[in-house]
Amino acid sequence: MFEFLRWIHVKHDSAPGSLVYAGAKREFVPHVTLCTYNEQNTTEKRLDPGEAITLADGHVNFIRVVGIHDSETIKAIGATMDFPNLALEDVMNTGQRPKFVWADDETGFIVMRNVDAREGSLASEQVSLFWRDNLVVVFMETESEFLDGVLARIRKGRGRIRNGGSTYLLSAILDSLVDRNMVTLARFSELAETIETKLDRKTTDVLLGQLYELKREVILLRNLLIPIREIFKGLMREDAEIPDSVLPYLRDTAGHHEQAVDGVTALHDILKSMIDYQVSLIGMHTNRVMQFLTIIATIFIPLTFIAGVYGMNFEFMPELKWRYGYFIVLGIMGVTAIAMLYYFLRKRFL
Amino acid sequence: MFEFLRWIHVKHDSAPGSLVYAGAKREFVPHVTLCTYNEQNTTEKRLDPGEAITLADGHVNFIRVVGIHDSETIKAIGATMDFPNLALEDVMNTGQRPKFVWADDETGFIVMRNVDAREGSLASEQVSLFWRDNLVVVFMETESEFLDGVLARIRKGRGRIRNGGSTYLLSAILDSLVDRNMVTLARFSELAETIETKLDRKTTDVLLGQLYELKREVILLRNLLIPIREIFKGLMREDAEIPDSVLPYLRDTAGHHEQAVDGVTALHDILKSMIDYQVSLIGMHTNRVMQFLTIIATIFIPLTFIAGVYGMNFEFMPELKWRYGYFIVLGIMGVTAIAMLYYFLRKRFL
Amino acid sequence: MFEFLRWIHVKHDSAPGSLVYAGAKREFVPHVTLCTYNEQNTTEKRLDPGEAITLADGHVNFIRVVGIHDSETIKAIGATMDFPNLALEDVMNTGQRPKFVWADDETGFIVMRNVDAREGSLASEQVSLFWRDNLVVVFMETESEFLDGVLARIRKGRGRIRNGGSTYLLSAILDSLVDRNMVTLARFSELAETIETKLDRKTTDVLLGQLYELKREVILLRNLLIPIREIFKGLMREDAEIPDSVLPYLRDTAGHHEQAVDGVTALHDILKSMIDYQVSLIGMHTNRVMQFLTIIATIFIPLTFIAGVYGMNFEFMPELKWRYGYFIVLGIMGVTAIAMLYYFLRKRFL
Amino acid sequence: MFEFLRWIHVKHDSAPGSLVYAGAKREFVPHVTLCTYNEQNTTEKRLDPGEAITLADGHVNFIRVVGIHDSETIKAIGATMDFPNLALEDVMNTGQRPKFVWADDETGFIVMRNVDAREGSLASEQVSLFWRDNLVVVFMETESEFLDGVLARIRKGRGRIRNGGSTYLLSAILDSLVDRNMVTLARFSELAETIETKLDRKTTDVLLGQLYELKREVILLRNLLIPIREIFKGLMREDAEIPDSVLPYLRDTAGHHEQAVDGVTALHDILKSMIDYQVSLIGMHTNRVMQFLTIIATIFIPLTFIAGVYGMNFEFMPELKWRYGYFIVLGIMGVTAIAMLYYFLRKRFL
Amino acid sequence: MFEFLRWIHVKHDSAPGSLVYAGAKREFVPHVTLCTYNEQNTTEKRLDPGEAITLADGHVNFIRVVGIHDSETIKAIGATMDFPNLALEDVMNTGQRPKFVWADDETGFIVMRNVDAREGSLASEQVSLFWRDNLVVVFMETESEFLDGVLARIRKGRGRIRNGGSTYLLSAILDSLVDRNMVTLARFSELAETIETKLDRKTTDVLLGQLYELKREVILLRNLLIPIREIFKGLMREDAEIPDSVLPYLRDTAGHHEQAVDGVTALHDILKSMIDYQVSLIGMHTNRVMQFLTIIATIFIPLTFIAGVYGMNFEFMPELKWRYGYFIVLGIMGVTAIAMLYYFLRKRFL
Repeated sequence: MFEFLRWIHVKHDSAPGSLVYAGAKREFVPHVTLCTYNEQNTTEKRLDPGEAITLADGHVNFIRVVGIHDSETIKAIGATMDFPNLALEDVMNTGQRPKFVWADDETGFIVMRNVDAREGSLASEQVSLFWRDNLVVVFMETESEFLDGVLARIRKGRGRIRNGGSTYLLSAILDSLVDRNMVTLARFSELAETIETKLDRKTTDVLLGQLYELKREVILLRNLLIPIREIFKGLMREDAEIPDSVLPYLRDTAGHHEQAVDGVTALHDILKSMIDYQVSLIGMHTNRVMQFLTIIATIFIPLTFIAGVYGMNFEFMPELKWRYGYFIVLGIMGVTAIAMLYYFLRKRFL
Repeated sequence: MFEFLRWIHVKHDSAPGSLVYAGAKREFVPHVTLCTYNEQNTTEKRLDPGEAITLADGHVNFIRVVGIHDSETIKAIGATMDFPNLALEDVMNTGQRPKFVWADDETGFIVMRNVDAREGSLASEQVSLFWRDNLVVVFMETESEFLDGVLARIRKGRGRIRNGGSTYLLSAILDSLVDRNMVTLARFSELAETIETKLDRKTTDVLLGQLYELKREVILLRNLLIPIREIFKGLMREDAEIPDSVLPYLRDTAGHHEQAVDGVTALHDILKSMIDYQVSLIGMHTNRVMQFLTIIATIFIPLTFIAGVYGMNFEFMPELKWRYGYFIVLGIMGVTAIAMLYYFLRKRFL
Repeated sequence: MFEFLRWIHVKHDSAPGSLVYAGAKREFVPHVTLCTYNEQNTTEKRLDPGEAITLADGHVNFIRVVGIHDSETIKAIGATMDFPNLALEDVMNTGQRPKFVWADDETGFIVMRNVDAREGSLASEQVSLFWRDNLVVVFMETESEFLDGVLARIRKGRGRIRNGGSTYLLSAILDSLVDRNMVTLARFSELAETIETKLDRKTTDVLLGQLYELKREVILLRNLLIPIREIFKGLMREDAEIPDSVLPYLRDTAGHHEQAVDGVTALHDILKSMIDYQVSLIGMHTNRVMQFLTIIATIFIPLTFIAGVYGMNFEFMPELKWRYGYFIVLGIMGVTAIAMLYYFLRKRFL
Repeated sequence: MFEFLRWIHVKHDSAPGSLVYAGAKREFVPHVTLCTYNEQNTTEKRLDPGEAITLADGHVNFIRVVGIHDSETIKAIGATMDFPNLALEDVMNTGQRPKFVWADDETGFIVMRNVDAREGSLASEQVSLFWRDNLVVVFMETESEFLDGVLARIRKGRGRIRNGGSTYLLSAILDSLVDRNMVTLARFSELAETIETKLDRKTTDVLLGQLYELKREVILLRNLLIPIREIFKGLMREDAEIPDSVLPYLRDTAGHHEQAVDGVTALHDILKSMIDYQVSLIGMHTNRVMQFLTIIATIFIPLTFIAGVYGMNFEFMPELKWRYGYFIVLGIMGVTAIAMLYYFLRKRFL
Repeated sequence: MFEFLRWIHVKHDSAPGSLVYAGAKREFVPHVTLCTYNEQNTTEKRLDPGEAITLADGHVNFIRVVGIHDSETIKAIGATMDFPNLALEDVMNTGQRPKFVWADDETGFIVMRNVDAREGSLASEQVSLFWRDNLVVVFMETESEFLDGVLARIRKGRGRIRNGGSTYLLSAILDSLVDRNMVTLARFSELAETIETKLDRKTTDVLLGQLYELKREVILLRNLLIPIREIFKGLMREDAEIPDSVLPYLRDTAGHHEQAVDGVTALHDILKSMIDYQVSLIGMHTNRVMQFLTIIATIFIPLTFIAGVYGMNFEFMPELKWRYGYFIVLGIMGVTAIAMLYYFLRKRFL
């Protein structure tokens, strides 16, 4: 049920800093892509397996590692870049809480999640980021399109990305991850709306089940979004040394994240309210049905009793001999029924 | 369902700072109005499409832009005033979270919402504000009357508005937006009262549905009001440099906003309480009806059984031959019915 | 429903600082009383309408204004005392949030509410206070006895009031207002107890309705008490310059207010718990009744079936010819009934 | 219901600092005990009524006042010790919120509550403490054993109490009061366990009522424990000048208090959960019973109908003439009953 | 029910700092193990009862004490190491709140809990830790495997443990305790999943009871995890003087703890949601059954009434003489039944 609890089964007994993969089983061979760019030009290259990484001076070096299940690859990259083992361990242990720490004096390390709402349930993969002057390294579990927009802007030189340095690239990547959260939230919000429309027509327990499942996913999304706040708080503290030219973009992204947190909270409250409403609607429907049926029964039971009385076989029952006895009894039955109906209507039983 | 989630579908792939409109479709041509005033005089002018804006020295220049769906207009104004693109992007992306940031060293930028309770459901449009020394620019989605009061005071020179400078104008605009929130809250509060009056007469599920809808709108309003607190906090910090003569007005407005937040929270709690009460009232009514009906049935079922016994066709049933058998049985039935009624009354079943 | 939302209907379009009354309609002529005192002597005087106020040197001047619905009176007093218009506007706009601000460099301004629990529902009037060296001005909506205790102490020279200066008088007035909150809370608490006693005997929906109404009033009282905390916090900050001789009294009053806030929160929780308990008690009673009735019906239905079988008119039904058929069937019916009763008892159905 | 609301009925009209008793009526004569001790020796003496208190130099003077309902006694002690009237007023007004203030520059004043869980409901008495160098004065409503442990340690010279000075004594007294809270919490916890054991056997509304009452007491206890936190915070601030040798003991006590607050919160949550569970258990039991009974009725109703058909007196009913008509009908009835049972079982109705 | 309330029954009357065991009864003889290591070598030795402890210079001395129920052992170790009595008392009083204090100027003291989820319910033992330069002493209630991983790393010299000093060892021990919390949380999470799978098939009150019990355990776990936050906060404050080389490991562990707190909160919310869903599912199932049964009864009751009418024994009932009277009545019955079924279907009663 809870992806964020998976990694602990592996970690046992291993020292902090040992590189053991602790995520879902993956079969593909990890690959590394190096993209270097500055204001003038941009190159992109997919490295061969085992090929060493050569950083370009005077450029921002943007390295994407797709696939974190092979400790050799991670170890090699970590050694080249001189990343500390403790951080590399976090890279391989999917299921980390989103966080921002300094890997060393000049290298920042961020763990985020790439969120998805496949088929209405929350899925997420871990994205780890290292950055220092002129270098950004992104590790992701599988090939994912969340960086496509950023890459397109690098290629076409749109916006400020080409001359913003590594912190601008960092802020752009965080922005696209926050966007994914927003899209997921929007997806859940649409699901809630779809269910609401159906509820207008007929409330069933299937729909109620869907509401409860959606609420669970929204709780999990909220649980995932809240620690991300601390990442932005940390980045905007003075000691993070984000340049003034990049700060507004980061602040913008942090604002969107706050909006997502607000939204997920409101959606949770609304779902709770919807569920309460549906449960009481279902209850009221049942009550109305039962009440209607009981009224029918209640009207016929005394009539049946009267019929029963004149079905008794006593030898001496004077009414049975009367010429119009039968019709009189029928009349009494009719009057009784009408009187009861009138009484129930006046008492608002119907 | 959630207006604040609409803009994200557009933003994908575009770099931060690109001017793309992300709100409801609008057909009209945006127009710009320039109002300049100082203590002595005031001029007002609606600019022709494409006309350049000329600011008046020694006056407060108050520019209203109605319609933000045309990126050319926004771009032109932004260029004239030298507003940064990142802020202009926020202007065009309706659905922003209310916020206050410094667009540049001397220009403040605020995003607020102009709230409305049309037909009982919450509607809102984005209002963006830039201000610097002697300049206030307001962007709004459609023509809205929320500035009428402010304009009237400028024209007639009522109050301090003519000699309060741009920060006083800013505070007056925020005040009128906060007033809209109060009016909306009052509208919801009246709706709650109206429903409550009807509930006194008869609780139906239609009314219950209205209560739940109202509660949802109140959750959304609360979600919208809470981030506005941070705008006032930011404006009242020392680095916002609001002059001492204007601060009391701003503090007054912030106080009203706090009142709105208090009010929306209390209304939410009261609606929750009302719903709980109605649900239990409906339940108790049904229970009382069912209980009454069941008692009727319970009284007649044993009587019907007795009638059934004497309707049996056994050849040897001594009672059937008795002279007063029929009347004795009728008497037994009557006594049974009265005994049961008495028992039910004593046991408080009725 | 919410008194605190009333004022907004008036304020529209008027500039901040315009004096417009925005409370319940009042017919009487406002009157002003001036009480001056020092350690040696005390004078009291009710001013004629329009009479100018002459402050006494070397005395504390305690001015009470009863009735705030006449803007001329307020304007005149404001002009004499040199109070800023923004504060005077708040005086006339009943429905303000309790608050403490500095009207000018040496004049403090406090808005509080004089709370009452008339007939079990929360009523409140606005009380506004200005104070500076040797001067305290109190504005109230109607003649109210909440100052009687303070005045009696001034007249009789009891306690420290005569030589405590204006801040001591301020603290005494706040103390008497906080006392009113405590009395109101005590009243609600007694109401809760009264209802609880009745519930022990018989729970009805009338009593449940009273519980819900009480809970609503308690929510409103809590909403009113919470912002008052900030008044005390503000007064006890160093820049409020309350003399050391008065501070302990103010701290004492603030402590009582905290007690009221604690109390209203606990009362709210207890009422919630009481309502839950009552709803489940009512439900359990209904269930027990229905269960009892259903058991009666269930016992008789099979018996009636047996009687029905032997009421059939088939020509060839051997039992009907038996000498003791009737008695055997009666016996079978009795055994069936006893067996069912025994089964129901063993299964804890009864 | 709420002890903490009792005092307000007295205070009206009296100036702050007037000594009026505001607690439950007490008949006994208050008495004062003086215990002096230092590292070498210890003396204990119960003062005669009216006897003056003589403090011993070079000793810690520990004065216990049992009974606070006689203003003369309190006034006399206050005058001897030079305690301010405002604090003495708090001593006599039982029902104070727990608090810590400086009575004067060198005298600390603490109000706490001595808590008890007599017969399962929360009872508490006010304990007031003054302390300064070498002096601790404790006021309590009635003779209570909560100081016995402290006194025993003074007498026997166990632990550090003899050479810890007045602040160590203070910390020991607070420790024994916090222990009382823990014992009360343990008592409520045991009650919850006892009820839970009974619930395993059979849930009745009597037990449910006990659960609700317990929850109410736990709410009141929580309300009482939370303000005590501020006392410890205040004592551990630097300006309280608790010596370094005593601080660890105070911190230990504060830790125990935190544990009590944690515990009362958890107990509240668990009681809420237990109540929810019991309410749903009762509901499910009723539902099962009703379902069972309704199934019996539902099986017999069609059979009774069939019997009714063949009880009709039409002249021409061919089946009645058949040789095996009766047995065929009995067979049909049996088959119908079995088919219905089978259907109900398959549909999980039973 | 609440382990954390057990110790208070012992403490009464004893001075703070007295060594009295206050945990579950244990029979075994406590034993002490000394492990010394530095970068070059490592020795391990189980001490004989009563054997004195000799610390090795230039090594980290890691002492494990298994069994805290013998005050002599604790006293002896405390005397050798010069630990203050107040801390030793906490060691013996199991049921302490997790905390971190300075035992003396250079010795830190931490109380944690070793958590376990045996058979689905929360069990925990107290683990106390002293550390100073080159010394770590761990006290535990029983032999437990939580240190096995740490010891293995010391023996094999894996990771940084051999040259990290005593603070690194401390952080490794805390890490393994936090891991236990994670494993416990994972266990509860799995239990929740298992129950959820079963619920898909059939909801019974047994499963509901399991859900409630699980929720209670989760409340207790949350109550236990939250105070641990303060331990990490305290250790990461500057005055704790954790060396820079160890800080990242501690921060890592603190991050995992935050994850556990997040997880326990989310699990609590999800369990609440699951319970609500199950209760409403059970309610809906019952309602559907009752509705179905009532419909059957409602259809047959009017039919039985018709049969009753023609079972009456009036002499003059013309229909009885009709040739096809019987078949006409059967036809009327059929039509009535079909009409009712059609009506119920159209009204969505079925």
